[in-house]
Amino acid sequence: MEALDYHAGERSKAEFDVEEMKIVWAGSRHAYEISDRIARLVASDPVFRKDNRTMLSRKDLFKDTLKKAAHAWKRIIELRLSEEEASRMRFFVDQPAFTDLHWGMFIPAIKGQGTEEQQQKWLPVAYKMQIIGCYAQTELGHGSNVQGLETTATFDPQTDEFVIHSPTLTSSKWWPGGLGKASTHAVVYARLITDGQDHGVHGFIVQLRSLDDHLPLPGITVGDIGMKFGSGAYNSMDNGVLRFDHVRIPRDQMLMRVSQVTREGKYMHSDVPRQLVYGTMVYVRQQIVLDASCALSRAVCIATRYSAVRRQFGSQNGGPETQVINYKTQQSRLFPLLASAYAFRFVGEWLNWLYTDVTQRLQANDFSTLSEAHACTAGLKSLTTTATADAIEECRKLCGGHGYLSSSGLPELFAVYVPACTYEGDNIVLLLQVARFLMKTVAQLGSEKKPVGTTAYMGRAEYLMQCHCDVQRAEDWLKPSVIVEAFEARAARMSVACAKSLSKFSNPEEGFAELSADLVEAAVAHCQLIVVSKFIEKLQRDIPGKGVKRQMEILCNVYALSILHKHLGDFVSTGCITPKQGALANEQLRLLYTQVRPNAIALVDAFNYTDHYLSSVLGRYDGNVYAKLYEEAWKDPLNDTVVPDGYHEYIRPILKQQLRTARL
Amino acid sequence: MEALDYHAGERSKAEFDVEEMKIVWAGSRHAYEISDRIARLVASDPVFRKDNRTMLSRKDLFKDTLKKAAHAWKRIIELRLSEEEASRMRFFVDQPAFTDLHWGMFIPAIKGQGTEEQQQKWLPVAYKMQIIGCYAQTELGHGSNVQGLETTATFDPQTDEFVIHSPTLTSSKWWPGGLGKASTHAVVYARLITDGQDHGVHGFIVQLRSLDDHLPLPGITVGDIGMKFGSGAYNSMDNGVLRFDHVRIPRDQMLMRVSQVTREGKYMHSDVPRQLVYGTMVYVRQQIVLDASCALSRAVCIATRYSAVRRQFGSQNGGPETQVINYKTQQSRLFPLLASAYAFRFVGEWLNWLYTDVTQRLQANDFSTLSEAHACTAGLKSLTTTATADAIEECRKLCGGHGYLSSSGLPELFAVYVPACTYEGDNIVLLLQVARFLMKTVAQLGSEKKPVGTTAYMGRAEYLMQCHCDVQRAEDWLKPSVIVEAFEARAARMSVACAKSLSKFSNPEEGFAELSADLVEAAVAHCQLIVVSKFIEKLQRDIPGKGVKRQMEILCNVYALSILHKHLGDFVSTGCITPKQGALANEQLRLLYTQVRPNAIALVDAFNYTDHYLSSVLGRYDGNVYAKLYEEAWKDPLNDTVVPDGYHEYIRPILKQQLRTARL
Ligand SMILES: Cc1cc2nc3c(=O)[nH]c(=O)nc-3n(C[C@H](O)[C@H](O)[C@H](O)COP(=O)(O)OP(=O)(O)OC[C@H]3O[C@@H](n4cnc5c(N)ncnc54)[C@H](O)[C@@H]3O)c2cc1C
Ligand SMILES: Cc1cc2nc3c(=O)[nH]c(=O)nc-3n(C[C@H](O)[C@H](O)[C@H](O)COP(=O)(O)OP(=O)(O)OC[C@H]3O[C@@H](n4cnc5c(N)ncnc54)[C@H](O)[C@@H]3O)c2cc1C
Repeated sequence: MEALDYHAGERSKAEFDVEEMKIVWAGSRHAYEISDRIARLVASDPVFRKDNRTMLSRKDLFKDTLKKAAHAWKRIIELRLSEEEASRMRFFVDQPAFTDLHWGMFIPAIKGQGTEEQQQKWLPVAYKMQIIGCYAQTELGHGSNVQGLETTATFDPQTDEFVIHSPTLTSSKWWPGGLGKASTHAVVYARLITDGQDHGVHGFIVQLRSLDDHLPLPGITVGDIGMKFGSGAYNSMDNGVLRFDHVRIPRDQMLMRVSQVTREGKYMHSDVPRQLVYGTMVYVRQQIVLDASCALSRAVCIATRYSAVRRQFGSQNGGPETQVINYKTQQSRLFPLLASAYAFRFVGEWLNWLYTDVTQRLQANDFSTLSEAHACTAGLKSLTTTATADAIEECRKLCGGHGYLSSSGLPELFAVYVPACTYEGDNIVLLLQVARFLMKTVAQLGSEKKPVGTTAYMGRAEYLMQCHCDVQRAEDWLKPSVIVEAFEARAARMSVACAKSLSKFSNPEEGFAELSADLVEAAVAHCQLIVVSKFIEKLQRDIPGKGVKRQMEILCNVYALSILHKHLGDFVSTGCITPKQGALANEQLRLLYTQVRPNAIALVDAFNYTDHYLSSVLGRYDGNVYAKLYEEAWKDPLNDTVVPDGYHEYIRPILKQQLRTARL
Repeated sequence: MEALDYHAGERSKAEFDVEEMKIVWAGSRHAYEISDRIARLVASDPVFRKDNRTMLSRKDLFKDTLKKAAHAWKRIIELRLSEEEASRMRFFVDQPAFTDLHWGMFIPAIKGQGTEEQQQKWLPVAYKMQIIGCYAQTELGHGSNVQGLETTATFDPQTDEFVIHSPTLTSSKWWPGGLGKASTHAVVYARLITDGQDHGVHGFIVQLRSLDDHLPLPGITVGDIGMKFGSGAYNSMDNGVLRFDHVRIPRDQMLMRVSQVTREGKYMHSDVPRQLVYGTMVYVRQQIVLDASCALSRAVCIATRYSAVRRQFGSQNGGPETQVINYKTQQSRLFPLLASAYAFRFVGEWLNWLYTDVTQRLQANDFSTLSEAHACTAGLKSLTTTATADAIEECRKLCGGHGYLSSSGLPELFAVYVPACTYEGDNIVLLLQVARFLMKTVAQLGSEKKPVGTTAYMGRAEYLMQCHCDVQRAEDWLKPSVIVEAFEARAARMSVACAKSLSKFSNPEEGFAELSADLVEAAVAHCQLIVVSKFIEKLQRDIPGKGVKRQMEILCNVYALSILHKHLGDFVSTGCITPKQGALANEQLRLLYTQVRPNAIALVDAFNYTDHYLSSVLGRYDGNVYAKLYEEAWKDPLNDTVVPDGYHEYIRPILKQQLRTARL
């Protein structure tokens, strides 16, 4: 029997080689093959089933998560998976778990901040998971302001130990993932105090639970902080609360790569540059940008496929109705998100390169690009996570009523994704950092220090302040140089305008605070420029496969012109383009949508997601939506009985007018 | 002992009479008193407790909902509450239930579409809840396109009955609230067929379940459609699926106010105007606009109070850190939402008046304002629900990490609110209707037919197409006439521009489809103008209370200028204002934020919400956030045991390297 495929017609319309696009999306043939193999492995394993996840109680969900983590680890060992394969496996299991923090934060923190000796002691046991670690920074009272943390680590020279203590309620550690129930250890951030002197916040490795019976060690109070957004979603994670009552740890458990405390209690710095920590941040944030492209592409895949199945209105002479994907409003909402998924993927790839570049420079003691790289990753983390969170919800709305069902997969995807806007730096706080860097860059224009990397365009600020866009017909907007110049001019003019306003304040800090809302907008303009330019740069390379490059060009233009349309006020009011040119851009955008349309399904097929990973009835590869929606419904526990539990106590007395006498 | 109040300082700073503002918000002293009394009644009743709601399983949540509905009904009877009071009680119980559809859709449908006779037969039993009804329109395959519904109601002249049938899978009724488990009856929409002829979709009263044992009647398959977005949230509602296998109902159960089928099977229209149905739509949608202001104000209340408690950065000389509400970025995100809450409240109030006006005109056979009223309510439903959904999520983000906890109340509020963007008309489909009406209005300019009501400004299109904004200093933006003219000019120019583009198409329908994304933007501009003008009109009335009117003026300006800033592209590219004037508006906006700041807490106190209704640890009246967050955490079931369920099977074997032999 032929496999059913409601999308077959759509698939046959594609004007490019989907298999080649899969490789572009994955980054390389090697990456594609690993992803493809591991995704299937996970999808075919019944332990990794997740279609019933949103119905589980908190306790059952957590137990299910422990089971999946253990099973994944077992498979990783049995199959002798490489680090890369293991990490893909955790990715496709697709259920937040303590292991994310163990591998993603605990180990990198020790690697980045521990001495050689500490690494040799702790990393092997961590790699084997003989200990499970988490990253305990945030407290009830402090998240963004890390320097304001209140937990103390006081050196006791008598015993050569640190005393870790939670002096106030607000100093309770709060939020660390994996802390609540699973971790045996944590990297704890606390104020280092020696001899009555406060040296600010430092990291310490602290054992939390006994390795014998998992009970908290003396002086430690630890638990889960309770339910979070959504059903299923991030509730599989045991984000935790932790209090210390004078807990003692040996001196050598302070992470001492950059600063040390000697046996005598003397506080010192090594010659390792402090900026090293920025390297880790660049690493973590480039990962977040790649994750954004995954979450976004997943939502877009669901909404695109469903939009091709869903028909509403427009039947002619009793024929089928119009697929909603053919409506221009649907396209103008959906296709920019499809383009963003690709754009974020490519900028994430570039960030990955940037991380390598920065690391190499650091090793050569070259700090010249560090602050630019730091600002750029902070900005891109903010830009891509905000856009992705909004986009997932837009995709849900694009699916009409059915998008609101858990079985559409979109509610859970949204709920599990949104904290990315907050963790690893609140998105607004990050944009303010970018803005600060931009103001510094503008202030230094004309000086010795030339702007580098993603701010290099600022070096041409004089030109960009007065250049004129020469678009005269809609198709002029297809020229990469035209697009880049418009985005550069807009970003430069907004930054320079802010700098001018700032200069009117006698106190620059006051000015910065007063103008911060405008500064954030300038930072966004700068980050959007980066995404656009990196997409265009990607297209300058050789890209094999019939029609693949052509599709990418279309998507790149959709991304750029849709951003331009959305922020038209910026472009026009800074005089970068005229209102007429704005209208031409919009006209061109409409034409581009028409070019995306026949390729839409193939463009989401290129993400190569299994139905298991998507876990969406609406996003099924075969498009068999209605039969499966109907089937799913009956699985709800409420359908266990025809007459609902509670009928006799609460419905019947109403109907029979016997409420007065009922005991409720 | 004095009650603790962390906000006391904030409250003492208010520059207006909060008690008087409460009355303005409620609409009248009478409305205020009822709301206040019923809210306290609900809050003090342990049955209505909802702080543990997000932890309940689907079955327990549903049973809890039945209990609350029965208890509320019992109290309504015992206390002999008026209709108004009863409806406030359901509002403050704040848990979606079958009763919402019974009172909000089933009864109004019979009132609006039933004959006198039918009303006399069905309404008394419905008012006493001797039957429970729902509204069964949407099907698996059709929501927006009501005319495409597939369920059939075929008249059988032999037995004088209709045969209700679900001929296809996609004809299954799908989504009706209260249908899944609770309702005994439904108003079912089906294609009326007499003598082989299809007369399109009509409403029928159909009994679904036995009044004796609640079992579905023969031929009826009914159940719940499964979990929806979030935990708690809308999962308390039994949105249902329903299939008919040739179910027979007497002829007099077709709702026959407008059309009838005679004993002989003849299809006829009465002289009751068909437009009457629009009256009901105006009613339902004005209610949705008021609901938007409630949901939005609730989110804003939580975010505002927490922003005054939360401190992060900016400590000077060891003093307390800055309250995050003092950051301009926080203000520029939060205060426009606060202003929107008030704006939506007032436009909702005005819609309520409009509904009365339309009803009176209908009774006098005056249809002149009907299509304008219909377009205007459709547009405002779309505008306010979209803005509110986005705003709730923004409020959540404004609370940083803690906003992601269920105990913040914001995740559930979002999840329960968002379907308002989809039900009662998908928001994009509604804007397209508004756009269609606007294009008609433009086409008729210069003809006999003068634009009325909210489109009256179009009558001055010629002037508005060429007028110049004369703002020269920031404070010029405080003049209501300046604001209104800018908004009118923008809306008129966008509509006229669309009409011009449309005229270039030989086939106007094709043109409409092609330009629909632009048309939607023109519709939004028109709707924003309505909100702004109604706010300004409200201020022209007498408003008692020290400083109350002043605060409202500030909020009105914040609303208008923040919209202008957000849509600067529209204003500048249509030439309504210059870039310089746009910058002045932004400058004025910053000054306005400074004026809102000292009054922010009092402005949200004026909503008069109980802590029970808010159900948010972050939004507590007393601001005692941290102690309560900490307390709440320990209630999570995961904290029942120190060592989690699953440790022995899944964690220990990892730590002890015994996975290979473990059976998972
Ligand atoms: C799901 C999840 C998982 C997490 N996992 C971990 C973990 O594993 N380990 C860990 O240590 N932490 C973790 N966290 C905590 C997370 O890192 C913090 O929540 C995050 O850093 C934001 O800080 P905050 O909550 O203090 O926000 P706040 O800073 O309190 O933000 C509140 C508001 O104030 C604004 N604001 C703050 N400062 C400024 C300023 N200077 N200028 C303008 N506006 C400002 C913000 O923009 C925001 O609108 C997690 C959080 C979540 C939600
Ligand atoms: C919580 C909830 C409660 C509900 N309660 C009830 C109830 O009690 N009774 C009842 O009968 N129904 C109920 N509904 C159903 C609801 O009325 C429909 O979901 C709603 O009308 C939207 O229709 P749809 O789902 O068919 O969306 P669709 O029309 O399928 O929308 C899908 C996409 O197509 C787009 N689209 C559709 N048509 C066009 C067009 N012509 N032009 C451009 N774009 C278009 C939409 O904008 C959307 O992006 C409920 C729904 C929900 C979510």
